[in-house]
Amino acid sequence: MAETKVVHATDQVRKLFYRPVESVFAALSKREQLRSWYDHGSASDVLDVELDFAVGGKKRVTYQFRQGTPMAGKVLVNEERFMNIVPNQRIVASSVMTMDGQPFSVSLVTFELASSGPGSELQVTHQDAFFENADGPEMRQAGWTGLMEWLGTVVDTSDAAELAK
Amino acid sequence: MAETKVVHATDQVRKLFYRPVESVFAALSKREQLRSWYDHGSASDVLDVELDFAVGGKKRVTYQFRQGTPMAGKVLVNEERFMNIVPNQRIVASSVMTMDGQPFSVSLVTFELASSGPGSELQVTHQDAFFENADGPEMRQAGWTGLMEWLGTVVDTSDAAELAK
Repeated sequence: MAETKVVHATDQVRKLFYRPVESVFAALSKREQLRSWYDHGSASDVLDVELDFAVGGKKRVTYQFRQGTPMAGKVLVNEERFMNIVPNQRIVASSVMTMDGQPFSVSLVTFELASSGPGSELQVTHQDAFFENADGPEMRQAGWTGLMEWLGTVVDTSDAAELAK
Repeated sequence: MAETKVVHATDQVRKLFYRPVESVFAALSKREQLRSWYDHGSASDVLDVELDFAVGGKKRVTYQFRQGTPMAGKVLVNEERFMNIVPNQRIVASSVMTMDGQPFSVSLVTFELASSGPGSELQVTHQDAFFENADGPEMRQAGWTGLMEWLGTVVDTSDAAELAK
């Protein structure tokens, strides 16, 4: 068989929070909160976040790489579709990532939440298929690890009134 | 952390065909051909196949288990959405499976085609997330192995005129 063009990989990130599962679930499912933690990147700006949080609905996050970075000016879009939602417990989404309109990976992402003492634990499992010119398994795992740190910053430093928005 | 409810697994099936990649691609992307090879099951009948073969389009296959089987009368629906298509080379779809309306798994499925001598080889990679009351990794792999046998029966025994339909 000719060499395959698709690289398949699975990896996980676990993250503990001081806040309960409801706070983390809100940060994953409300547009303003999503935007606040996605927008922590040092290499790119978040241009837009669209969200229809329902089974069959879409999340679409558009980034642009900053001047002075290797991919300056390029536009990255992550378009997810929600496939399964159990409030405060589970979100499963499929995702297509494109760079300047060219798809380079598709993924299945499972978020699982559970109580952990007074706080909570989130497990993110990303099952990825990388095409030509993709980032690949190691960079993707590093990306998820960074995203979860940003999520923690927003969830654990916000007050309850903000999280309820 | 409380015990996770989702089981993640990845597996592959490879299948050789006497026919070239174009014939296999047609059998994966045309409604009448799909229906003919899906409908080889001894435990269930295919009630309906809907297909909009385009990126963002859906495939929906509805089965009903036959009398005399352990799940007699139950209705299984596999709804896929096409996420990436490269003609005669690659199809990537996300899939939600439901039993009597209850979702029990989501998957990312990658079909990769390559020439192999005068024929072709298909590699199917299924990245699965199983919920409560799901079939699980072993039964799913057995299911894919069976499906690929049925696909082979249809592709390798049809004449060229039928495949072009």
